[in-house]
Amino acid sequence: MLNVTVWNENRHEKHNPKVSQIYPNGIHGTIAKFLAEDGHKVNTATLDEVDHGLSNKVLENTEVLLWWGHLAHGEVKDEIVEKVKQRVLDGMGLIVLHSAHFSKIFKTLMGTTCDLKWREADDLERLWVIDPSHPIVEGIGEYIELEKEEMYGEHFDIPAPDELVFTSWFEGGEVFRSGCTYQRGRGKIFYFRPGHETYATYHNKEIQTVIKNAVKWASPTKFAKPAYGNAKALEEIKAKETV
Amino acid sequence: MLNVTVWNENRHEKHNPKVSQIYPNGIHGTIAKFLAEDGHKVNTATLDEVDHGLSNKVLENTEVLLWWGHLAHGEVKDEIVEKVKQRVLDGMGLIVLHSAHFSKIFKTLMGTTCDLKWREADDLERLWVIDPSHPIVEGIGEYIELEKEEMYGEHFDIPAPDELVFTSWFEGGEVFRSGCTYQRGRGKIFYFRPGHETYATYHNKEIQTVIKNAVKWASPTKFAKPAYGNAKALEEIKAKETV
Amino acid sequence: MLNVTVWNENRHEKHNPKVSQIYPNGIHGTIAKFLAEDGHKVNTATLDEVDHGLSNKVLENTEVLLWWGHLAHGEVKDEIVEKVKQRVLDGMGLIVLHSAHFSKIFKTLMGTTCDLKWREADDLERLWVIDPSHPIVEGIGEYIELEKEEMYGEHFDIPAPDELVFTSWFEGGEVFRSGCTYQRGRGKIFYFRPGHETYATYHNKEIQTVIKNAVKWASPTKFAKPAYGNAKALEEIKAKETV
Amino acid sequence: MLNVTVWNENRHEKHNPKVSQIYPNGIHGTIAKFLAEDGHKVNTATLDEVDHGLSNKVLENTEVLLWWGHLAHGEVKDEIVEKVKQRVLDGMGLIVLHSAHFSKIFKTLMGTTCDLKWREADDLERLWVIDPSHPIVEGIGEYIELEKEEMYGEHFDIPAPDELVFTSWFEGGEVFRSGCTYQRGRGKIFYFRPGHETYATYHNKEIQTVIKNAVKWASPTKFAKPAYGNAKALEEIKAKETV
Repeated sequence: MLNVTVWNENRHEKHNPKVSQIYPNGIHGTIAKFLAEDGHKVNTATLDEVDHGLSNKVLENTEVLLWWGHLAHGEVKDEIVEKVKQRVLDGMGLIVLHSAHFSKIFKTLMGTTCDLKWREADDLERLWVIDPSHPIVEGIGEYIELEKEEMYGEHFDIPAPDELVFTSWFEGGEVFRSGCTYQRGRGKIFYFRPGHETYATYHNKEIQTVIKNAVKWASPTKFAKPAYGNAKALEEIKAKETV
Repeated sequence: MLNVTVWNENRHEKHNPKVSQIYPNGIHGTIAKFLAEDGHKVNTATLDEVDHGLSNKVLENTEVLLWWGHLAHGEVKDEIVEKVKQRVLDGMGLIVLHSAHFSKIFKTLMGTTCDLKWREADDLERLWVIDPSHPIVEGIGEYIELEKEEMYGEHFDIPAPDELVFTSWFEGGEVFRSGCTYQRGRGKIFYFRPGHETYATYHNKEIQTVIKNAVKWASPTKFAKPAYGNAKALEEIKAKETV
Repeated sequence: MLNVTVWNENRHEKHNPKVSQIYPNGIHGTIAKFLAEDGHKVNTATLDEVDHGLSNKVLENTEVLLWWGHLAHGEVKDEIVEKVKQRVLDGMGLIVLHSAHFSKIFKTLMGTTCDLKWREADDLERLWVIDPSHPIVEGIGEYIELEKEEMYGEHFDIPAPDELVFTSWFEGGEVFRSGCTYQRGRGKIFYFRPGHETYATYHNKEIQTVIKNAVKWASPTKFAKPAYGNAKALEEIKAKETV
Repeated sequence: MLNVTVWNENRHEKHNPKVSQIYPNGIHGTIAKFLAEDGHKVNTATLDEVDHGLSNKVLENTEVLLWWGHLAHGEVKDEIVEKVKQRVLDGMGLIVLHSAHFSKIFKTLMGTTCDLKWREADDLERLWVIDPSHPIVEGIGEYIELEKEEMYGEHFDIPAPDELVFTSWFEGGEVFRSGCTYQRGRGKIFYFRPGHETYATYHNKEIQTVIKNAVKWASPTKFAKPAYGNAKALEEIKAKETV
């Protein structure tokens, strides 16, 4: 059982009936539901709440944070991003979903533009498992097929992932590193590509399995913050004459 | 032959006679000299120049940039850091030296705090070669021994390097990942630990060999910027009925 | 609860009273005890048993295998090594301890000589945590100090580990990548350096914690063997005229 | 200028007129030609020569070896494979082409089965550049398109590459890590997927550019073999009472 917070921009849901039909309780609502069913204590938070729903107390209590954003990355306050970053470096897991590749939090943790190719054209997407030993792929098959999705294509401007878990094939001719892990400070990060708002992707059972696995994988390691700064010698240092 | 710019904060040299005695032309002057002798066209730039000596023209012409800073990271203007970052992502090589682990440019490219342990106590440092296949170690021995250096110790809060080239042993009991490579965008980055201002480290021939090798290794790859953004399909996408 | 097998050469224990005094039930006995106390179902196996104690049935039932060997790597039968390798590639976790760096199973999985420097001289060893996010370091401090150990020094001729978890400092002046993870096939491997037979290393509580964590980390991922070989197209391939 | 040896099984060329028409001088002849034009001193060697054309003298003089095999991996003598492996670990570059994924030399260096999916069905292959900073992609575009090729699909049972340079899209619905680098010992290895014998792939100018770049990238680093085995302490070790 982990304390999980699902963050969602929650704007498409308000203005696009197609989206609110697929996700009547918001993308965050759907994700929160299947994570709660997996035994976690799940909280949701959205852009338009005070501090985007991410008060110090909420962040301190969150062990794994999921992030979905698209239209309004620029509206996320820098001081909140900074706090989330600090929490990740201090051990909170972070699951970055789909268009959150362009979120401030992902870009500042990656140090690159996180840019990519994209197309909204009902491409078939097939996510191939690249690392069959990884706990994130437990319980799924060799690939996940999504009949229609937005296309994201290489080059994806990210640091080489620590572990490449999935690579997507798209009907229109592109490939994409669609499941990537990163370690930053004491925190673990998983980027997972699928989840365009106009498709029912987060209702897909295999996609849900991957996200459930990722939450467990990203849970914080109990390890005290290392000591940084000026350090006393642990061994004697011999006095030396300058040559 | 590469167009190389050696950037130095150049403050210790102005105020600390011990430093100016070791580096009468500044740390940048010493580094520039041995790189010029290696056949490169070398320029220097320092903090107190207009735009820190890093005008658009200088940056555009620089193929590999070396960076040394310590006291005054905070005085480096954010807009210059942003321009340097963009150049690295566009292919310019970056060699980050010693205390520049805390420079704005390194921290923003890494996405972590880049914090570490340190001690000024005349530790002996021994840099062991971890990757003997790497072009950066060509022409040196199994390890480089520096009789006295500042200590930097783990935990070093960086992303796991793409390639770990050196690990240091310190007399006082610590270890440190002292030679680390990273790919970011189209650019290559090398962090190299040694070089405290009160020691003659950059006069050491093996240290010079490593830096010369690193400059060659970091030279830009001739590769056009990938196309990002909306992309036409390369293959036909079948019309599908929604299930 | 995992099905764990602790394999030990068990030769030093028979001939060297110093070793049998430290490990009256063998190195395997000591390791098996603390793993059983951690809730696992633990079996032991040794070189001089039939098939080295690694029958097909034992291997099939083993979820994580620990391996300690030193004097008699050459006596391990190639067909048993081949079976262990196949099990690792099929998902069984493997924890390779100390002098097993030169075991047939580790060398065949690594593809390199796995050679290193060594010295039996009562060096102090300090294992520094390099990756504080890794589940293998949960519950320990910034470093583990072993008052006396055999020294292993770089260059360690292994493939660059997928994750570098520990690096050791040795009193005599060397460093060593002493905690390394690898993914091979569907299996997870952890190499952990300490454990020379004449020291009480496996009685050390922090060393025990690391090994307990490693066993959990290496547990098999439930994922069916991918299909290899000739594959039918999942999408239609257009007939093309040769240009 | 490097001393390059192009090794080819050279069996398809003898028995299949379709192949000998495309490669009248053998696959090795075509590759040798464009590498010689790039300024290298190029030698060829084939399976049916004495020692497969790989005498000690040839191997000692080879700085980069290219390897193409398919039908007759089993006929390559184990002692020759062992010698080639030792040369790679000692610094010789190795370029493994297409169906040589199943060669003894690649499998023994990788430690895994190197198995994959395959199909001969005139799939279109599009090799996307994943790492635009890598010297191996210099001078090519965002992707290389091959109108018809054999398909190789994931899961490809290899260790996670040190650097992932290319990923292929196949018309029939698969993806593949088609350009992978590895460091082993002092040697550098590049696996490059395309090159089925019944297609004119090695006549493709972009494919030739990649192979030329790879040869340069894989050139040996001048670095003496590290000392392995028993090592004297570099620092004094204090006598300690056993606790």
